Amino acid sequence: MILVNGIETGLLDARDRGLAYGDGIFRTLLLRGGKPKAWADQYAKIVTDCARLNLSAPKQAILETDLACIASDMPDCVVKIIVTRGSGLRGYAVAANLVESRTITISSPIPIYPRSHTERGIIARVCDLRLGRQPALAGVKHLNRLENVLARSEWDGPEIAEGILLDIGGKVVGGTMSNLFIVRGNALLTPNLSACGVCGATRERILASGPELGLKTGIDEFELKDLYAADALMLCNSVIGVWQIRTLAHQSWQMHPATQLIRTLLEADFD
Amino acid sequence: MILVNGIETGLLDARDRGLAYGDGIFRTLLLRGGKPKAWADQYAKIVTDCARLNLSAPKQAILETDLACIASDMPDCVVKIIVTRGSGLRGYAVAANLVESRTITISSPIPIYPRSHTERGIIARVCDLRLGRQPALAGVKHLNRLENVLARSEWDGPEIAEGILLDIGGKVVGGTMSNLFIVRGNALLTPNLSACGVCGATRERILASGPELGLKTGIDEFELKDLYAADALMLCNSVIGVWQIRTLAHQSWQMHPATQLIRTLLEADFD
Repeated sequence: MILVNGIETGLLDARDRGLAYGDGIFRTLLLRGGKPKAWADQYAKIVTDCARLNLSAPKQAILETDLACIASDMPDCVVKIIVTRGSGLRGYAVAANLVESRTITISSPIPIYPRSHTERGIIARVCDLRLGRQPALAGVKHLNRLENVLARSEWDGPEIAEGILLDIGGKVVGGTMSNLFIVRGNALLTPNLSACGVCGATRERILASGPELGLKTGIDEFELKDLYAADALMLCNSVIGVWQIRTLAHQSWQMHPATQLIRTLLEADFD
Repeated sequence: MILVNGIETGLLDARDRGLAYGDGIFRTLLLRGGKPKAWADQYAKIVTDCARLNLSAPKQAILETDLACIASDMPDCVVKIIVTRGSGLRGYAVAANLVESRTITISSPIPIYPRSHTERGIIARVCDLRLGRQPALAGVKHLNRLENVLARSEWDGPEIAEGILLDIGGKVVGGTMSNLFIVRGNALLTPNLSACGVCGATRERILASGPELGLKTGIDEFELKDLYAADALMLCNSVIGVWQIRTLAHQSWQMHPATQLIRTLLEADFD
């Protein structure tokens, strides 16, 4: 099901600035039993990301009406919410009358991943593409995602589940579609995203849950060598929850107890 | 008029990867008396840009049919040609069956600029936003243009006609919607775009026209101070042709004879 400004249609104005310039943001979340997972966190992210682009955020009640409509059609699904600046004339300048954003809501079946991804961890690779550094857009889940597309096109086949991205300065950023956590003793750390990368809602949830997890969470800078030296590496997003990395290049890890702790935390969001 | 894969419609599949990720490229060109300006150059750029993204380029004859259709409706207009990777399932990976790109062709009236822009030059500003460096995408006129949108949103009103962009390393890149040329004695130089920026067809045309212009054209690196020290600064694109910069920050310039030489060269493309 696809809704554009709440109306069921698969079609969009071809002059939408989301197409022309990637002028918009998106979020991806899970619906289970008709209930959107971590919705308060997701909506808060929509608001902050829209503010970063000076885009008017859709009202929470309007998005909730869309989600209810999708839930009645498909109670268990992945929902992608896209917010664009709407249709514009030619040119980068935003017309003064372009005050209302446009919302596109798309449901998809929940992907089925191998059980080994959660039970034994995944195989990841280090991507060749290095992310550019752009503080003005860093952290925002905006629609300019060609770097992710190029990085994801570096491998094929189901053996490799995710790619790790570094930036042009050699700092670790995260996965192509996920955020990264590094376990080091009692610390659960995630890369600083002030120059590039996307701040996922699940990353924020984990960062805020140190006391519940009995771990010291924080943000730091990492190079590739720091990943190989970690006690464990984990990838998270709203759809996969958390996957531990079993193998990255020459290095392998056993399952770490923190992975199951985090999974339990994230699953509790449905209670 | 809007054509999607040659069919007149203003609507596009909301799952287009051009919207989801900016996964595509575009060109903007002039139609005058039904004839597309510098079409061979523009089509060559479409082919090289598509290749950079591993996107299948639309056939020249197909685009020419679109242009003829638009010309019959509006013989003098600006045409924007967008090529996207088409509609995809959720996720950055490109499905193996996604081999055909999608073409969106949009006509708009030719903008009317003040005569003083060509006769006396324009006022430009230096943008605060610094472009990120991403060699994998540099030069390509792709759909990830949020940096341009943010830079263009830094000013309002008609007094300032264009903004000059530097990259995060302080190197000059060009205008938000135009390429920059710097006159220094007998040399006509333009910034190196191997780290960021867009290689416009008009830039290429000017670079290749040194002998015709009686100037030594070339590519070099520039910092802001080099712009202030130049004999003249010019901005070019397919729609504006060429504008000299009259004022940039504290510095002003008289009209330089090279500007009219370049204008004559570009206008000759219509003969």
